[in-house]
Amino acid sequence: MDGEKFSVEAGKPIVCKAAVAREPGEPLVIEEIMVAPPGHHEVRVRIICTTLCHSDVTFWKMKDYPAVFPRILGHEAIGVVESVGEDVDEVVEGDIVIPVFLPDCGDCADCKSKKSNLCSKFPFKPTPWMTGDETSRFTDLKGEILYHFLNVSSFSEYTVLNTANIVKIDPSIPPSKACLLSCGVSTGVGAAWKTANVEAGSTVAIFGLGSIGLAVAEGSRICGATKIIGVDVNQEKFELGKKFGITDFVNVGECGDKPVSQVINEMTGGGADFCFECVGLASLMEQAYASCRKGWGKTIILGVEKPGSQITFQCSDVILGGRTLIGSLFGGLKAKSDIPILLKRYMDKELELDKFVTHEVSFEDINKAFDLLLEGKSIRCVIWMDK
Amino acid sequence: MDGEKFSVEAGKPIVCKAAVAREPGEPLVIEEIMVAPPGHHEVRVRIICTTLCHSDVTFWKMKDYPAVFPRILGHEAIGVVESVGEDVDEVVEGDIVIPVFLPDCGDCADCKSKKSNLCSKFPFKPTPWMTGDETSRFTDLKGEILYHFLNVSSFSEYTVLNTANIVKIDPSIPPSKACLLSCGVSTGVGAAWKTANVEAGSTVAIFGLGSIGLAVAEGSRICGATKIIGVDVNQEKFELGKKFGITDFVNVGECGDKPVSQVINEMTGGGADFCFECVGLASLMEQAYASCRKGWGKTIILGVEKPGSQITFQCSDVILGGRTLIGSLFGGLKAKSDIPILLKRYMDKELELDKFVTHEVSFEDINKAFDLLLEGKSIRCVIWMDK
Repeated sequence: MDGEKFSVEAGKPIVCKAAVAREPGEPLVIEEIMVAPPGHHEVRVRIICTTLCHSDVTFWKMKDYPAVFPRILGHEAIGVVESVGEDVDEVVEGDIVIPVFLPDCGDCADCKSKKSNLCSKFPFKPTPWMTGDETSRFTDLKGEILYHFLNVSSFSEYTVLNTANIVKIDPSIPPSKACLLSCGVSTGVGAAWKTANVEAGSTVAIFGLGSIGLAVAEGSRICGATKIIGVDVNQEKFELGKKFGITDFVNVGECGDKPVSQVINEMTGGGADFCFECVGLASLMEQAYASCRKGWGKTIILGVEKPGSQITFQCSDVILGGRTLIGSLFGGLKAKSDIPILLKRYMDKELELDKFVTHEVSFEDINKAFDLLLEGKSIRCVIWMDK
Repeated sequence: MDGEKFSVEAGKPIVCKAAVAREPGEPLVIEEIMVAPPGHHEVRVRIICTTLCHSDVTFWKMKDYPAVFPRILGHEAIGVVESVGEDVDEVVEGDIVIPVFLPDCGDCADCKSKKSNLCSKFPFKPTPWMTGDETSRFTDLKGEILYHFLNVSSFSEYTVLNTANIVKIDPSIPPSKACLLSCGVSTGVGAAWKTANVEAGSTVAIFGLGSIGLAVAEGSRICGATKIIGVDVNQEKFELGKKFGITDFVNVGECGDKPVSQVINEMTGGGADFCFECVGLASLMEQAYASCRKGWGKTIILGVEKPGSQITFQCSDVILGGRTLIGSLFGGLKAKSDIPILLKRYMDKELELDKFVTHEVSFEDINKAFDLLLEGKSIRCVIWMDK
């Protein structure tokens, strides 16, 4: 693992390459930047590979706050600890870690509870700063601050992470697969496994077959769901989805005058046992709720709507339907304990990660990863820092 | 048990006294009516005692559909089987039964499932007819139809019930206590026990300390909740509530500029583990949701709002909060299997029913029961048919 790269710069800033988002929607610029040494409870990590997730694209396109520029995007990755700051005993130089946007401090009431994954020491907010304070660890070579992204900022050869945002993993796992559990695949698989606790033999409807939706299908498949309905506007997603366990498909554009919920109610004899909204569209969240079975149906909201958006339900539907609505961030996973479980299930050949990787590019071609995602051609494009 | 009253009229109409709601908001009129013999899968029941629940008052005051007149209200009661119709093998003449508004047919997918209490053979609707068809079993002595109410119509010496709407119980249980499990107390206790599954040591907030809210408190107390916060506009409810397990109180009128949810968040260090809305007010449902703990809080909706009312949530609160919202009709109880369990807990002196009975009147004084409830003086007023 390139031992000579470690420690030489410990305690000092590192100059390295990063892909900087300087303007909304403009290609990232690969340039040299300065990465500060890790502070208290922080580690500096050399990224091995990173991938591109829809949230990166959302914040790259966005013109107003919480989007800020110049910024180092990227939050799904894997890396090796280059140096550690004060009071870090969880990892040492050379350890392989996965960064996670959602903090897991291990000390607060939430992190100590089995029921919550929403750390209250570092409540998740899309700030442009380092976890836990309002400073940056990045500057460009003119001394200008570069903003952080989702507590990770992996589109850089080196990044600084709070120990609440890392999970140490078994170094024998192929990095291009392990990195998928850093965000998207974990979110989807976790939503099926942890938040919904999908039961064997049950019926699932997944609204939106992007990478998160496909990961929900994969999670539902592993949990033993027997009917997994994909709901999307793109018919091609059905063929693709079959690889992930999708058994049936609703093309939203071909429902005619029927609401999607009516179509799903008819397909399932009264509604799906579990519905997952993976797009982030309020109207679709309402359709998902209406699509789940009265009496026991659960609707899990994974999609992130734009700020200020609202969902509305008829009070009578709520009480007479007996349904459950649950919000799920990061699939309800507790990063430090649950990601190793998912990695073990990958090594045991239960969880199939390989099929999520559709493309691989070198860091200098990072803008190609954006093109592939925008064109709908990729699920996950792995971006190798050293190639 | 007045054996001579049974069977004499089996197969024939019975003439008996009933308290008929002839006009919205006008005192009930006690008059002689005709009660048809029970049909297929039906039983005719002589009511021993009945009580008055808020839903009776709501439909008594209401001027438009689903309110209809003339009608026999009442749905919380206990009685003795006078005669049975065809294909009834669940009970025989002389059995003691509790009527329940929510059908439990025992045959459909919902009734066979442990997860649902929403019978799909007889989906619950507030129709003015007999369960399962669109006819009435009641006429006045001029031959005019009298409408049914909530599948029960207990403000009559005799009523006809579908077997899906009865629960046979141990005849040794005092009727004025057993009848409380016919609706209100079951709904509240069930919401805490079955829908929410309140955990020992947890924190509960109850919005509205009417009889349902007090029953939620009683259920939460039995489940071992250690902090049970009552939320009401009437300060006197705090003293009353203490008998049912209420430990803390929020007077909504004294919160000043603070939303109730903020007050509860401050009292509980971040929100209650379980919130119950027992009033049926959309704005209070939203406050209840905002009052439950991020990460694991559950909000249970018991209150019935007027038709067309909506609740609205911020999408960002749903996904970032990780909270659960559940609709609960009849406290999530499966009548035939769960009411006997609650009755056993009463006989074992765990569930305290006596304190719910604040008044008792004779049938001819039934309008006094309305006055007592409207004046906020009673929790449950038992109306004795034979006294």
